[in-house]
Amino acid sequence: MNISVQTEGPGLYEITRHVLRQVEGAGASARLLTLFVRHTSCSLLIQENADPDVQTDLAAFFEKLVPPSDHPAMAYLRHTYEGPDDMPAHIKAALLPVSLSIPIENGRLALGTWQGIYLFEHRRAPHVRQVALSIV
Amino acid sequence: MNISVQTEGPGLYEITRHVLRQVEGAGASARLLTLFVRHTSCSLLIQENADPDVQTDLAAFFEKLVPPSDHPAMAYLRHTYEGPDDMPAHIKAALLPVSLSIPIENGRLALGTWQGIYLFEHRRAPHVRQVALSIV
Amino acid sequence: MNISVQTEGPGLYEITRHVLRQVEGAGASARLLTLFVRHTSCSLLIQENADPDVQTDLAAFFEKLVPPSDHPAMAYLRHTYEGPDDMPAHIKAALLPVSLSIPIENGRLALGTWQGIYLFEHRRAPHVRQVALSIV
Repeated sequence: MNISVQTEGPGLYEITRHVLRQVEGAGASARLLTLFVRHTSCSLLIQENADPDVQTDLAAFFEKLVPPSDHPAMAYLRHTYEGPDDMPAHIKAALLPVSLSIPIENGRLALGTWQGIYLFEHRRAPHVRQVALSIV
Repeated sequence: MNISVQTEGPGLYEITRHVLRQVEGAGASARLLTLFVRHTSCSLLIQENADPDVQTDLAAFFEKLVPPSDHPAMAYLRHTYEGPDDMPAHIKAALLPVSLSIPIENGRLALGTWQGIYLFEHRRAPHVRQVALSIV
Repeated sequence: MNISVQTEGPGLYEITRHVLRQVEGAGASARLLTLFVRHTSCSLLIQENADPDVQTDLAAFFEKLVPPSDHPAMAYLRHTYEGPDDMPAHIKAALLPVSLSIPIENGRLALGTWQGIYLFEHRRAPHVRQVALSIV
């Protein structure tokens, strides 16, 4: 199973509905959902789905923690030929989850009230991202 | 299955015993434990359970990496109306695990000798936190 | 199941082939692989396997983000008696994954083209690291 996500630059893209749809079709014996992003320059993330400022602030924090490679503080980076957003994207992909596992109870995903599931894009150019799903 | 954790401010709360009790009741065919915290302002963490200074140092590091939103370095944050510890809690919840998966072998959790399982609270006010468990 | 990794100082050690071998032997009904590192001073990581500069840059970033405890910026650390690389190793182990879960589809691990699986050693001395595997 697979979810495709079209991204248009850095930031969070909510995929909760797509994930819930897959879980609904899985039957009552399902116990565990695992999501896995098949790339090394974007991430998965569970975060608050209420105030959109949370998503803006998150993206801003990670941009400050890992500036583009043409920023003076990042002059030590060597993997720069794919653009100033490339190596920082790999670093953010190390800091943030590549996989998420969520229990399923009585056919329902154990998400909390305020939890949404996001793909976090770290690259500037548009990408089609693949998220693999496993339901056990 | 669920574990409730009462927190009284920021820091690590060990839940290893509660988790082991659930695994003991799971039977010999169990292969995988997954823990999932149903909130976006606290985390799960596996860390050294021997020297309590490790836990103090960990909390201190994350407090310096992500200061409260009334700190001058965090003036860019917009999601501040729930208090100066709120948005930093969401950021720490992005940096630290929301889910943990641990193999079970012959009925025993594959934890290393020095590994304890913790809930890492990021908010200042007391909270009751819910950790969902799945055993496959 | 278990994979042992001999490390010789900080950096990334690729274990993709060892993992794939275990998945090959698992049979067609396997749905999910979970890796779990049984230590609190090294990590697991999925990262780009093409340009070795990515691995060098990743290690450099984390070394700057979490300097040794004899660096002036880290004077607040208390857990220092096992050497200047010890508490920073615990911090890096909190920032980076202790467990990874990867879907298996038709007997094949859902790794992307550019994704390799690494053990990320944070200590300076040689260590033998144990990675527990579960296939469900």
